[in-house]
Amino acid sequence: MKATVTVMLKAGVLDPQGKAIGQALHGLGFSGVGEVRAGKVIVLDLAETDAARARAQAEEMARKLLANSVIESYRVEVA
Amino acid sequence: MKATVTVMLKAGVLDPQGKAIGQALHGLGFSGVGEVRAGKVIVLDLAETDAARARAQAEEMARKLLANSVIESYRVEVA
Repeated sequence: MKATVTVMLKAGVLDPQGKAIGQALHGLGFSGVGEVRAGKVIVLDLAETDAARARAQAEEMARKLLANSVIESYRVEVA
Repeated sequence: MKATVTVMLKAGVLDPQGKAIGQALHGLGFSGVGEVRAGKVIVLDLAETDAARARAQAEEMARKLLANSVIESYRVEVA
């Protein structure tokens, strides 16, 4: 199964990358842009064929490696 | 409206970050992991209230700044 883990900085954590993107967009003339947040997405090909178990595996990977739970939150989608 | 732009390396483009993540996961004992691809996600707060126009704006931003269309593909979701 394919699992997609999306990792974002938690609300309230300063996001300099997002801020830089926002400023660059303003510089290009996109005036209607408010807050910009940048994150990571990791797409995993898993041998597991059961959706619930694949999700549990991907969540364990997120906890152990992919996300820093002090400052980041993650979301897992399985397809 | 909130627009989410997901940027991934195109299929066939070497993804060293994804490869490193895959090797780290194997090292942690996750044996059922095949290919891993890493990408970026950018969440934009747009002043635009019309979904179609917000999507068009976000796609223009992706083309002009957020994605390198030579090696990356992007997907826009509006909510």
